[in-house]
This record gives sequence, structure tokens and C-alpha cells, in this order.
Amino acid sequence: MTTGAKARAEMKGSHALRCIECGTEFERAGAEFRCPHCGDLLEVVYPGWAANEAHTAVWASQLKQTWWERNLSRSTEDASGVWRFRELLPHLPEPRRIITLREGNTPLFALPGCARAAGVDRLLAKHQGMNPTGSFKDTGMTVAISVARQEGFSWVACASTGNTSASMAAYAAQGGLRSLVLIPEGKIAWGKLSQALDYGALTCQLRTDFDGCLRILTELVRRHPIYLLNSINPYRLEGQKTAALELLEQLEWQVPDHIIVPGGNLGNCSALGKGLEELRRLGLIHSLPRLSVIQAEGANALVRTLREKGGRELVPVQAETAATAIRIGNPVSWKKAVRVLESTGGSCEQVSEAEIAIAKAEIGRDGVGCEPASAVTLAGLKKLVKQGFVQRHERVVLTLTGHLLKDPEYTLKFHRRELLPEASEAERKRLDPCRRAPLQVEPNLEAVLRVLETAEKTDASR
Amino acid sequence: MTTGAKARAEMKGSHALRCIECGTEFERAGAEFRCPHCGDLLEVVYPGWAANEAHTAVWASQLKQTWWERNLSRSTEDASGVWRFRELLPHLPEPRRIITLREGNTPLFALPGCARAAGVDRLLAKHQGMNPTGSFKDTGMTVAISVARQEGFSWVACASTGNTSASMAAYAAQGGLRSLVLIPEGKIAWGKLSQALDYGALTCQLRTDFDGCLRILTELVRRHPIYLLNSINPYRLEGQKTAALELLEQLEWQVPDHIIVPGGNLGNCSALGKGLEELRRLGLIHSLPRLSVIQAEGANALVRTLREKGGRELVPVQAETAATAIRIGNPVSWKKAVRVLESTGGSCEQVSEAEIAIAKAEIGRDGVGCEPASAVTLAGLKKLVKQGFVQRHERVVLTLTGHLLKDPEYTLKFHRRELLPEASEAERKRLDPCRRAPLQVEPNLEAVLRVLETAEKTDASR
Repeated sequence: MTTGAKARAEMKGSHALRCIECGTEFERAGAEFRCPHCGDLLEVVYPGWAANEAHTAVWASQLKQTWWERNLSRSTEDASGVWRFRELLPHLPEPRRIITLREGNTPLFALPGCARAAGVDRLLAKHQGMNPTGSFKDTGMTVAISVARQEGFSWVACASTGNTSASMAAYAAQGGLRSLVLIPEGKIAWGKLSQALDYGALTCQLRTDFDGCLRILTELVRRHPIYLLNSINPYRLEGQKTAALELLEQLEWQVPDHIIVPGGNLGNCSALGKGLEELRRLGLIHSLPRLSVIQAEGANALVRTLREKGGRELVPVQAETAATAIRIGNPVSWKKAVRVLESTGGSCEQVSEAEIAIAKAEIGRDGVGCEPASAVTLAGLKKLVKQGFVQRHERVVLTLTGHLLKDPEYTLKFHRRELLPEASEAERKRLDPCRRAPLQVEPNLEAVLRVLETAEKTDASR
Repeated sequence: MTTGAKARAEMKGSHALRCIECGTEFERAGAEFRCPHCGDLLEVVYPGWAANEAHTAVWASQLKQTWWERNLSRSTEDASGVWRFRELLPHLPEPRRIITLREGNTPLFALPGCARAAGVDRLLAKHQGMNPTGSFKDTGMTVAISVARQEGFSWVACASTGNTSASMAAYAAQGGLRSLVLIPEGKIAWGKLSQALDYGALTCQLRTDFDGCLRILTELVRRHPIYLLNSINPYRLEGQKTAALELLEQLEWQVPDHIIVPGGNLGNCSALGKGLEELRRLGLIHSLPRLSVIQAEGANALVRTLREKGGRELVPVQAETAATAIRIGNPVSWKKAVRVLESTGGSCEQVSEAEIAIAKAEIGRDGVGCEPASAVTLAGLKKLVKQGFVQRHERVVLTLTGHLLKDPEYTLKFHRRELLPEASEAERKRLDPCRRAPLQVEPNLEAVLRVLETAEKTDASR
């Protein structure tokens, strides 16, 4: 038996793959991770949970205890904020051979200034941008790439120009695998791609668009032993769901009223929703928080899907937003996301470019910072509060998905008034007080003191 | 009694400040953190340690146990990888009011590819770039800013265009303090400064050079209640020393043979050396690792100070290197660093711009990544191995000080062959195999397959 065959044999006992549309279950996915019957997405399910003691309160409290006590373990698995929760993940035949960069373990920060701006008493941010490569993608990548290696693959691949390729390349390098990144011609965010290059990805730029890259990649994985790591891969979502587990643990298992996530490809929302649902099913929590999704107005496929088609059919859009991590017009996981919104009673909103920029500066001003895509959560919260969907006293957690350093150019342009040059007079009135460009000051003590006094007066008058 | 006076009264019992040159001890530093007698640097000392049970093996093992068990605590202090070690830090009167972003807790990564490149059996990297703002500065900032707030300051300040201002601004924002950054005219790394702007620093650009900024800042803190946070502040070094404690804990208190750090302002080397020395004094370890410092050839003040003046007198230089975090010609902490090199038996080397670029790409290729300044450690290790100072079988730890995302432009330029255009033919032969620019590929399956086959052949022939 080859390593790959052995791995598949051992893994299949622990979980199965199920089509989210026709419900067919499989022991193992095909190379494209689509249902061979109806072509829809797959999700990981755990048939064993139904048969054993999973539903007892004892098991739930044992799990909480076990996970917590692993903070005192020195093993590589337990040092990962993902694998620490491995009872809810696919069982790997060689747990010590997981590929990990000590992902997860991300902090929960208070955002007092943002709370005031949004009109809620207290606001928390789960900062997944504090992952090793600077985005939430790492939590999913550790699982999917570990599965790839244990199944015997030596190459992994994705079509991406951003956080996914950065994360994939880092984990592949760490695990001794090779990684292939396909990128389209034309407008590329080279800054983000610099990570993939440095982590050693083989990067091919094709004279086609993003969909063309994805098409060629799909053909490739059918014909060559290369493991597909685009977000259609359900193992990535299994890793990502642990952020919900970790969050609940940080809240001492007190369920918040709202969790708000940015919506791009919608994998994160789907993953967190799945994690929460499983926690409830297993009795670790007894109610669900409302999970709401916020999109940029220029990349609002889910918003339109819900408003125009009642969530039954995707309305793809030509995506355009400066929040590059969610500049996606044709989100893969839209159907999973719709179900999460329905099952948790969450809302879906869109926010403008100016609203995103203001929210991002406010998150920075609280000493936390994030990439533009993450800031849609705060911008959206403001709307949800105005609509009465979120009450002032309710406990709200924003999910920040990327680090401030992921997009320094955006930050710089914003503060130097080079972003949103087309903003209206009204918008500018709200934008300008958030901008903090350097002041030109005479090189002497008195001049600096005058600047300080002005700043102190401004603070006092607020 | 004001809060500040109360804080000073309580803090003074726990520690004192001592001039490193004339040895005078003070209960409290002046605004400039220099000895009023001889003008030299101050360091934090703990007179109480001599009087109590500090030297017993029991206390040492209790400390190890206490620190480790704090991993199961839910308190804010214990969640910080700095304050978890608070028995070796100044006692703050209100421990719950520390300003923290959950700094420290940084991972120790294996670098197998780099180990092969350097000619050692095994190589570890303590990655301090995984701190919240992306650099090791955070570990010192949490201590110094907490002291500032508890002493009653509402403003903090530094002259900096890089990691220090980013870290200061984040912690100030987190703690509800205001921060002032003075930057010189001319060449500014705006990408790095974007963090300080976003975290809300009041940034003043003065028509003078860096030394001019520092001069004005020194005058300012003498005349106005503003807390100085440049690296002359000895409380910053107290926080930074905890990285040595955390490293030793991760190594289960087995002392490595070598620790290698980048040398810029030399505060980090001084801090780690102090931490190691204190661990030995308190009986937590029984020998010291050799702590070596590596500088860029273009910013080699310490190298020249040792070689030309026997370490007795600073040889300042006009600093020039693309590794901006160590582009410092007049290092503040040179005298502390010389003493650490002497007491630990460490070495000091310099490396070229090409050597830095290659080393950085190798650290990336192991899936870890870092900013250019951090890569001098690997480049220097190669030299130390060739010189026989480091033996193949010895245990070596590199200290990586900044995250890959701190300087995406450098990374991108390197891989696109835009960095080091003036490299010699010989250098180019070593540089080019490390460069990984995207390949232009026809948009069809066969073309991509050909690229893959070529890559596989190249791997196999290595």
C-alpha cells in the first residue's frame, strides 16, 4: 500500500465528503472537489459523531477541557491553534507529520473607539490577520496541505494573486512540497504576490483572465497529480472553521449576539458557520450567534443574490473595489454562505469605498489595524446598528481577516489624500478628519510645541 | 499623591536605574534617560534579587513552573509573552492596566534549507517578526509604554521612520495615549511609516536630518511632559530581553551554542544578552550561549568599533544598506553590545548586500520569510561556519526581527532582478538561482505542463 493509499484508508474512517446539493456521500473527492453527479460543492462530514457519545454533555465538557489543557503541551500539534481542535477535524494517519506554522491562536482585541463610532457599548475583533502569513487563509491551509502530503502529493496549486497564494506557498515550502500559482495577465497586486514568490512558488503568468487560469488549473489537476488548493477545496474550510471554536473558547463559551465577517469568495463565512453549527450539535454551545456578511458595493454578488433571487441563484458581478481581498464577482461558496445566513439569522449588507476607508482608519486608530477588506465589517456594523438589526447592548465580534501590512499602499494613499479622489463634498467631510498625513513643521522646538498644543486642543474639544 | 507619584513610589522598590559607565544608581531616570553625572546610558537593575531567595535552585525551578503554568491563565498579563515573565520585569503598581497587544509568544521555526546552505546540521529561527505590528519592537514597547502611562504621561514620542514608530503608535493607541513621531526631510520609507499614520500617530516632518530630529525631541522631553521612546529608554530593553527567556523556555532550558542577531542600533543584542545573563545569575541556566551580532557592510559601526578601537570607542559611519531596519551609523547601545559580546564570547561580522539578498530568499524558501535586516543573521552564520567559529554540529538559533510583509518592495525587486543591478558577474551567478520571478506562459494546459516538467527536472538534479 502506498503512503497515499494508506492515508486515504485511514482518513476515510473519520470523515466523508458530502455534496451540499444532492447529498451524495463519498469516501474521497475527485481532483476538482465537485460532486460527480450534480457538480456542486462538497463538504466534510463526520458520520462517526452520530454513532458515539458525541451528543452527551459529558463529551462536550471533556472536549472543552482537553482543548484548553493542550495550552500546556509541547507538541507541534497542540501549538497550532487549528490542530488543538483536532477532534472536530479529519483524522490524519500521521498526526506528527502535519504541516504547520503555528497558525491560529489569534488575539481578540477590544475596539473602544470603533464601538463609539458604531454606536455599540462594546466591540471585539477576532484578528485573524495575526496568522503567520498575515491572513486567515493559514488556518485552512494547514489542514488542506497536510491532507495533500499525507495523500502522497508532491505538488499543490491555486489560481490566485493574493492571500491564498501567499499562504499556500508558505505551507508548501514548510512541508517540502512544490507549489504552482497561476496568475492572469494585466492588473496584478504585486505586493501581495511578493510573498508567494519569496516562499518559493513556481508562478506562471498566463495571457488570459482569472477564469481562464482557473479553467486551465482544473484541467491540470484532472490530468496530473497536483493537489488543488483554491477555496473549492473543502479541507480548507475545515481548518478555517476552527477560528469559531477558538473564538468561543476565548469568550469562555458565552455565545456572542453577532459575528460579522467580510464577504468575498464566501468561504470564511461558510467555514465559521459550519464550526458554530457543529459546536451546537455537539452540545458545546446551546444557541448560535447571528453571522452576518458584509460586501463592498463594487463586489456585491451575495447581496444581489439574496435581494434579486432570494438566495436561490447566484448573481455574478464584475467586481471592482480597492479592498482587493474581496474583489470577487463570482463567489465559489455562495450557496454555503446563504445557508449559514439562513440558519443563524444573519444579515447581508454592502458598504461604499468611502465607508470602507473610514472604517479602516478607525480600526487603525484603536491600535489594531487591518487590510481594507477586513474593515467592511465595521462599516457594515454601523449600517446594521442604524437598521436596528444590532442593538447597542448586544455583544458583537468583528472578524478581521488580514493584517494592516498586507496593503501599505492603500493606507498611505488614504492618509495622503490620494485615495478616493472622486469623493463627493459630503463624503470628503467625513473622510478628511480620519486622514493623518505628516505635517510639515519648522525644525525647532517652538514649532513642534505649537503643533502639540493644537493637537491637545483638538482632543479636548472632541 | 498623584497617580504618577504613586506609581514611581511603588515601582522604585522593585528596581533601580544604574549608569552603565559610572555605576551611579537612581530611583528614577530623567526625561532623557541619560546619567546626569557622566551622560552615559542607564540600565534597569533589581537590587532586591540579591537580598532574597533569588539564588536558590528552588526559586529558579519555581519560576520556570510559574511561567509555564500561566499558559493556562485567562488574564491579560499572562496572555502576553512579555508580562508572563514579570518576575524579571519592573513591578507596575497596577498590573491590570498594562498596555498589551498580546506581544511575544513568537514561534521557533526549523530552517532545514537554510541549515544546508550554511553547513550546519540543524538551524532554528526565533521569529520575532510574528509580533502584532510585525517586529520585535513590540516586546519592548509594551513595557515602556505601560511605565509611561502609570507614571501619568499622556504623550509619548520618538524620532523614527520605521518599526519603532509603528510599534509605538499601536501601543499608544491601544492605551489611549497620544504619540508623536518626528521624521526627517528627504528619503523616507513611506511603506513602513504607513503603520504609524494608521495607528494614529501625530507625525511631523522637519526640514532637518535624523540627528536634528533627535536633538529637537530631546529638548522637547526636557521641557514638556512627553515620554521618550527611542531606544535609549532602558524599559524598552527590559521588555525585549524576555525574548531570550521565551526562547530558553521553548528549548526546555537547554542552552543553545549560538544565538545570532542583526546589529543596527544594538538594543536587541543588549537586551537579549541582559536576559541571558540574568537567567544565569538566577540559576535558571548554567551557561551562556555565544551571542553574535551581524551587520550590513554599509552600516558596520560595531564591526569597525571592535576592529579599529578594540571596542573602547564608537566609530560612527554614514550608513547605507537596503536593509533599512539596520541602516544606522551611530548605534545608541554600542557599549552595552560590546559588553554582551565579551561576556558571552560572541563574534561580530559584516555581510554584503548580495549576501543579505541571497540569505533572505533562502529564509523565504523555507516557508518562513523575514525583512531584509533579519536575513543578515543567516548570511553571517555562513561566514562564522567558514571561519570555524560555529561548528556543524552546534545548536544555532537565528533571531529574525521583522516580518516579510515589512518590506514587500525589496522582495519584489529582488525576484524581478531589479535589486543589486550593479552586482558583479560572480555575484550574479549566486543571486540568479535564488530569484523567482513569474514565468510568462502560453494559456494552455500543455504549456503549463512543460513548465512543471522542467521544474521537476531541476529539483531532481539538485
